[in-house]
Amino acid sequence: MTVTIIGIGLIGGSMALALKEKGFSDRVLGVDANTMHREKALALGLVDEIMEMPEAVLQSDLVILATPINVSEVLLPQILNIAGKQVIMDVGSTKKIICESVAIHPRRGRFVATHPMWGTEYSGPEAAVRGAFEEKAAVICGKEESDRDAVEMVEQVYRLLGMHLVYMDARAHDVHVAYVSHISHITSFALANTVLEKEREEDAIFELASGGFESTVRLAKSNPAMWVPIFMQNRENVLDVLNEHITQLRKFKACLEKENYTYLEELIENANGISRILK
Amino acid sequence: MTVTIIGIGLIGGSMALALKEKGFSDRVLGVDANTMHREKALALGLVDEIMEMPEAVLQSDLVILATPINVSEVLLPQILNIAGKQVIMDVGSTKKIICESVAIHPRRGRFVATHPMWGTEYSGPEAAVRGAFEEKAAVICGKEESDRDAVEMVEQVYRLLGMHLVYMDARAHDVHVAYVSHISHITSFALANTVLEKEREEDAIFELASGGFESTVRLAKSNPAMWVPIFMQNRENVLDVLNEHITQLRKFKACLEKENYTYLEELIENANGISRILK
Repeated sequence: MTVTIIGIGLIGGSMALALKEKGFSDRVLGVDANTMHREKALALGLVDEIMEMPEAVLQSDLVILATPINVSEVLLPQILNIAGKQVIMDVGSTKKIICESVAIHPRRGRFVATHPMWGTEYSGPEAAVRGAFEEKAAVICGKEESDRDAVEMVEQVYRLLGMHLVYMDARAHDVHVAYVSHISHITSFALANTVLEKEREEDAIFELASGGFESTVRLAKSNPAMWVPIFMQNRENVLDVLNEHITQLRKFKACLEKENYTYLEELIENANGISRILK
Repeated sequence: MTVTIIGIGLIGGSMALALKEKGFSDRVLGVDANTMHREKALALGLVDEIMEMPEAVLQSDLVILATPINVSEVLLPQILNIAGKQVIMDVGSTKKIICESVAIHPRRGRFVATHPMWGTEYSGPEAAVRGAFEEKAAVICGKEESDRDAVEMVEQVYRLLGMHLVYMDARAHDVHVAYVSHISHITSFALANTVLEKEREEDAIFELASGGFESTVRLAKSNPAMWVPIFMQNRENVLDVLNEHITQLRKFKACLEKENYTYLEELIENANGISRILK
């Protein structure tokens, strides 16, 4: 099976490694606009060959679109224009806009809209890791818009990666990820800026920062080239969640200002309820 | 060496394990107001014997005060009242109020105010783990107020635990921990409440939650009995940081509302600077 990876970064690179290791692909072609990424991807053995897009697509059975979502949105119609029997899947963090971008495309059926719920705060080919994706969820959106054989191939890919499949429509997906992923990144970015703004003694942070701080702030290392387009595309859902989050923070602020520690305790006890729904 | 642990929970229990393992203590006495905790601590082998406070203190070389900080503040003067040559250290998350509580005590010198920068979101004796504290910082506050032999014993304890020592005054400590620990807990509690408030489809969170969400929200499982007193005692510093954090979040909100993605990118790039100061 020949697989083309477009965008050989954290997600594309980790998929390339996994699909070779699992024996799904004996030939991985890499497409990337960034010369450094192309060279690194080859050097790291993530891909077998570097190629330009039309050629790579034409030689492939499966095309994985793993660029930032604003790029994917532009590339996907171009890929469908030249695709024949190929299956094309994306792995982007929002699903509504990319699905709309090809909704009336005559070869819409060859495309499967997906989102594997795995990532780290790092990016680029050197961020690719073995064993990524395992035991996480892979979302497939608008399955009924895709050809049956295309969906089956994508399901096979995700099962090989050790993921469990979840099906939902693109609009619902975008609401849910605002809660379980996008808001976490905003709070982490804002927390980093809070500390960088007011805590002038960086040495003290460096010395004292413990596991708790690191875990809430590590996402703040994430790449703006990936995240700005996500916040653009999921703007309304993210704003809804962000407004609610600021409201919740104001409750903590009010408790401290008014020294209402009974209510503060209730807020914390309520937050403890997250244990119910976290694995 | 006989060591008394008062409050045999996450921190006290983990210290008990480490001090036995490292050969510092051949006899660990446990004091705890909670019957269940006493039984569990014995059953888990965290302590050798359960005892009441005056007796345990009198039989000890070192007393480790590991109760919630509002309790420690009350117990510490009582312990100093009966202490002779014993060394008493606390391990609480704020330092100003406990130091003030014994500032003019005739036996102030026997007390060493400390804060080991390690913890998890779990509490109670069953949360105690082996290998805790390693490679983290231990803060010693107002060293000059303590007797030299007392400081030396505490330094020895923390070095045995594999920690590096940091010295600062209690007021500076409380400001720094507002940044590197307390605000992380508030954002995490508020994030949990945001999701629990608005996301009605808990199954979807459960299915989709990935590592990023889990790492920003895991602190929301933390125990209110520990955290309400911390926020009470460090109220002014936490309010300062919380106000700044809300201001930072509002900048993200304004970017999204005004669709100012250039500024959004700048905010994220600025947040990326946290890489400089995180290990």
